[in-house]
Amino acid sequence: MTKPMLQIALDSTDLATAVDIADRVAGYVEVIEVGTILAFAEGMSAVRTMRERHPDHIIVCDMKTTDGGAILARMAFSAGADWITVSAAAHVATIAACKKVADEFGGEIQIEIYGNWTLDDAKQWADMGITQAIYHRSRDAELAGVSWTQADLSKMRALSELGLELSITGGIVPEDIHLFEGIRAKTFIAGRALASESGQATAEALRREINKYW
Amino acid sequence: MTKPMLQIALDSTDLATAVDIADRVAGYVEVIEVGTILAFAEGMSAVRTMRERHPDHIIVCDMKTTDGGAILARMAFSAGADWITVSAAAHVATIAACKKVADEFGGEIQIEIYGNWTLDDAKQWADMGITQAIYHRSRDAELAGVSWTQADLSKMRALSELGLELSITGGIVPEDIHLFEGIRAKTFIAGRALASESGQATAEALRREINKYW
Repeated sequence: MTKPMLQIALDSTDLATAVDIADRVAGYVEVIEVGTILAFAEGMSAVRTMRERHPDHIIVCDMKTTDGGAILARMAFSAGADWITVSAAAHVATIAACKKVADEFGGEIQIEIYGNWTLDDAKQWADMGITQAIYHRSRDAELAGVSWTQADLSKMRALSELGLELSITGGIVPEDIHLFEGIRAKTFIAGRALASESGQATAEALRREINKYW
Repeated sequence: MTKPMLQIALDSTDLATAVDIADRVAGYVEVIEVGTILAFAEGMSAVRTMRERHPDHIIVCDMKTTDGGAILARMAFSAGADWITVSAAAHVATIAACKKVADEFGGEIQIEIYGNWTLDDAKQWADMGITQAIYHRSRDAELAGVSWTQADLSKMRALSELGLELSITGGIVPEDIHLFEGIRAKTFIAGRALASESGQATAEALRREINKYW
C-alpha cells in the first residue's frame, strides 16, 4: 500500500487568496486542489494558474461532475488538471465519458461519494478501470456536528477492498489518522487546517501519524 | 397551474459565445440559465454578465450544488442569480443551507434530480419549503439513446403531486410536450434547439404545444 499524500483544498472565492495559500503550503503538500467554490468563482483560469505556478504538484479540479462529462473533463484537463472529481450520483454514461477523456490526457478521475450510492455502484466504477474515490463527511454535515462513524469506516474498508484508493476529507485532524489504518488512502485532504498559520506544523503532525500506519 | 416558461441553457465554454446566444434568444425565452459548463469555464462573471445584460429575465445558475451550500449559494445570488440548482445527492444540511441563503436574497433553489433519489427525499424537500425541482434525461444518457420513459413520467407526476414545480430538460422537442400534460411544469429547458438558426421557430412551436396543454 502506498503512503498517503497530503492535499490542500483551495476553496477561496477569489483567485488572489488561493494563489497566496497555494504558494504558502506548496512546500508541504503533494496535491493542490482547485475546490468547487474556487472553480465556480473564477472558472478554469484557477486551474491554469495553479498548473503554471506549481508544475510539479498534482493538480485536482473538484468539479463533482454530474452531467456533460466529456466537455467538463476536457475543459479541466486542458487547463492542466491531473485529476478531476466526478459525482457518484452521475449517470454511468457520464462517468464513462469522463474516464475516456481522462485516459486521453493521461489523467485520472475520482468518484466523489455523495447521495444514496451502493456497493454495486462502486463495483461498476472499479470494473470501468476507475482507481480513485473520495470519501468525506460533507462540509455541511460536519458543521451540523456529524462525526466519523463506524458506518463510514466500514464503507471505506469495503471500497478499499474493491481496489479503490480513497482520498479522505472533512475536518481531518492528526488525531483521526489512526482511524483509517488498513484503508488504501491516496490522500488526506484539508483546507483551513493546512492553510492556517499553524499549517506546516499540522502537516508535520499528519505525516508523523501517516508514517505510523502506512 | 401556471403556464410553463421557456429557458435557454447556456453551456458554451466561453462567455463571448454565451453572450451572443443570450442576446439572440432573449426575446423568446423568460429564463436564462448559466449552465454548469459555462459557470465552470468563466466563473461567476458569467452570472454577473447575464444579470447586467438581461435585467428583466430570470437568471439561473446551474451549480448542481453538492456541498459547501451556503458559500456557493451566496456567491451565485450575490452575482445576480434568481434561482440556483442544488443536487438531489447533496446532504440535507447542504440543501437547507442553500435554502436559507436563497430566502435571504428572495431567490429560489431548484433540486436537480440525479442519482438514486427516493420519494421520501422529495417529501423532505417539499417539507423544507422547496417549490422547484429539475427533471431530465442526463445529457450523456440522451447521447447514449435513453429516451423519456413511462417511469420518468410517473416520477414526474409523483413529484408534481407533492407540489413541486418541475423544470424539464434533455433534448426537449415540440413533439414531446404533450407527454408532460397534467404535470406542474415550471419551464422547459433547451440549449442547442433554442440557440440554433431555427431557434425562434422552435420556441414558437413549443409555445403552441404548451398552450394546448396548460
